[in-house]
Amino acid sequence: MKNINQIPTSRIEAFSDGVIAIIITVMVFDLKLQEIPTDKTVWNELIKLIPKFISYAISFLMLSIMWVNHHQLFHQIKHTDRKLLWYSIHLLFWMSAVPFGTNFIGANPLLWQASFFYGIIFFMSALSFTILRNYVIKSNLLHDTINKQAHIKIRNKNRVALSIYLLASFVSLVSVYISFALFLVVPAMYFIPEKITYSNINEL
Amino acid sequence: MKNINQIPTSRIEAFSDGVIAIIITVMVFDLKLQEIPTDKTVWNELIKLIPKFISYAISFLMLSIMWVNHHQLFHQIKHTDRKLLWYSIHLLFWMSAVPFGTNFIGANPLLWQASFFYGIIFFMSALSFTILRNYVIKSNLLHDTINKQAHIKIRNKNRVALSIYLLASFVSLVSVYISFALFLVVPAMYFIPEKITYSNINEL
Amino acid sequence: MKNINQIPTSRIEAFSDGVIAIIITVMVFDLKLQEIPTDKTVWNELIKLIPKFISYAISFLMLSIMWVNHHQLFHQIKHTDRKLLWYSIHLLFWMSAVPFGTNFIGANPLLWQASFFYGIIFFMSALSFTILRNYVIKSNLLHDTINKQAHIKIRNKNRVALSIYLLASFVSLVSVYISFALFLVVPAMYFIPEKITYSNINEL
Amino acid sequence: MKNINQIPTSRIEAFSDGVIAIIITVMVFDLKLQEIPTDKTVWNELIKLIPKFISYAISFLMLSIMWVNHHQLFHQIKHTDRKLLWYSIHLLFWMSAVPFGTNFIGANPLLWQASFFYGIIFFMSALSFTILRNYVIKSNLLHDTINKQAHIKIRNKNRVALSIYLLASFVSLVSVYISFALFLVVPAMYFIPEKITYSNINEL
Repeated sequence: MKNINQIPTSRIEAFSDGVIAIIITVMVFDLKLQEIPTDKTVWNELIKLIPKFISYAISFLMLSIMWVNHHQLFHQIKHTDRKLLWYSIHLLFWMSAVPFGTNFIGANPLLWQASFFYGIIFFMSALSFTILRNYVIKSNLLHDTINKQAHIKIRNKNRVALSIYLLASFVSLVSVYISFALFLVVPAMYFIPEKITYSNINEL
Repeated sequence: MKNINQIPTSRIEAFSDGVIAIIITVMVFDLKLQEIPTDKTVWNELIKLIPKFISYAISFLMLSIMWVNHHQLFHQIKHTDRKLLWYSIHLLFWMSAVPFGTNFIGANPLLWQASFFYGIIFFMSALSFTILRNYVIKSNLLHDTINKQAHIKIRNKNRVALSIYLLASFVSLVSVYISFALFLVVPAMYFIPEKITYSNINEL
Repeated sequence: MKNINQIPTSRIEAFSDGVIAIIITVMVFDLKLQEIPTDKTVWNELIKLIPKFISYAISFLMLSIMWVNHHQLFHQIKHTDRKLLWYSIHLLFWMSAVPFGTNFIGANPLLWQASFFYGIIFFMSALSFTILRNYVIKSNLLHDTINKQAHIKIRNKNRVALSIYLLASFVSLVSVYISFALFLVVPAMYFIPEKITYSNINEL
Repeated sequence: MKNINQIPTSRIEAFSDGVIAIIITVMVFDLKLQEIPTDKTVWNELIKLIPKFISYAISFLMLSIMWVNHHQLFHQIKHTDRKLLWYSIHLLFWMSAVPFGTNFIGANPLLWQASFFYGIIFFMSALSFTILRNYVIKSNLLHDTINKQAHIKIRNKNRVALSIYLLASFVSLVSVYISFALFLVVPAMYFIPEKITYSNINEL
């Protein structure tokens, strides 16, 4: 029997999983060879794919980090409400824009506009995730046994990531190479100190 | 152990989530730059995307409203039956046509035919949702604790939305700009008085 | 806690739902206007879409019937085993070919080859469904309370559908219009006597 | 009520199902006829699709084998942790590259580079699956009633598959036909002695 008063998070999780799975997977479509390769053109065609592959791999990594965090956050949520649904949809909207940014920067990586939009899209995605997390903390939707302190720690880390994305966007006007370097900082930030975060979760 | 006599709604919910997630996400594909942008063409290419982006965002919003309502309705359904499956599939069929309408209006927003079909597709989607809701109410598929009055209220609101979509379609023959304005009325209608609807749900 | 010895059907159901949702939804992509429509070309472009839309709608209907039957069959299955997984994947393989057939017949509906392949794909899909159902009945995977007689009745109906698909394929060599008519017979067959089938299910 | 301390595997399974379902299904898109076929060109167009169809069918089979093994492995896992999520995402990353390889080898099957990359992608997919399985065994994430010996047996089989994929990649420099033959060996290896594997599972 379903509990009518407390709407479980299962369906928003399933819907988010669906959307994120599609976003992550459809980007691979831009990795197609544009023309039927022949013996002479094949290396040329493959070399043209290198920036596309790199931007694909970075987007895949960033979206995966978001999914892992989404998974972890929703696991700790007691039940959903209408506002939580809308904050989640807001997040999915910006995540849906990632394939556009990835395609743009993959097609012409040296254009500053490409780095600019790529950064803005990730900034907006990370921002909407932070808004979602804030709502969850404030609205007392977390299971009572969860240490809110850990979430506040994560939120502070998110703020650093947000600043880096914004910086990467605007620094593209000066040099796209600095932007590229900054785009690699965020995944590194979330990936390297993984054990610490992980032990935090275990402590909860 | 599964209850054999009462088929749960879990699978039609999962299937609908899958279809809606795909519809919502694949529309972003039309947001691709048509040609590899260069320093000179990049702003031109980006400007060409503006109507596509706007129509994408509006469709995303409308489909999200439908998903939220679908989520809420199915949460209150006791169990499924074969007719409910078919009414759901009927809804999904019209929702699947949304990317076509979005692509059409995004490609040439000033053609009245684009606004016409865009409006008709949303009219048919909203109509099939209303038919689905009527069936659920009439067939006594709602949990017994649910106040049917709230659903009848929502249905009346749906009728207003249906009329607006139909009006938006036919007014495109006179002016597409009036159609555009009307397309924005429906999401506003569902979004602004959200708290009232929400409190209704809580009351159930 | 999960029961280790009896693998539930939930994951093969979820995977099938995902694959069928994608198949059904991606077909709508062929409904795009090929060129950016202008005031002069728009009706021309829309008329070109009519055979595509019809073939899309018919494929959508046929795949939906399969999904509904899949839903109903798996609801009555106790647990899965490795063979059931493979029979399901075999079914999904042929269903995945439906967008190819739909695209082919939509692009040039008067070519007999289009009708031929369209029919063969549905024949193979229906055949693999029948093989799946036979395995389920023979392997005693149905819940004990299920009346096997109903499944045998359905299987006989399937055989008629199989014959019609095969006939539609080969009759295309004589006249594609007879094929078209036959393609409409199968959905009608499953749709019109719905109540009878439905009451059978209730009796189980 | 959700158990907060032990994160269930349900969501990583659902996410993997979504990604694999999309990968498997989107490959079918390359099976489109390139031009609108006419009475004269239709056989030509269809013949051009034959290598695409074969590479599609082989990739479908290989991805299905991976899904079945994934299904079986995760069924035996007690709960998930952050590392398991990342090993799973790593696997999905390489599986996502399969449509690229399939498209490449389908477009020009006689180019050794196509066979080379096709082999490497499956090598990396199989390698990341082996890493995932090793982690599960070492981290004691399997249900206590599971016989680890069976998993070690499977791992050894995986090593043979890995070697064959690598061999197929490099042998393409000598002859793509030997590569093709080797690509068929792995599915055969997993498919033919299915009963033995299956009885192992039953023994667990």
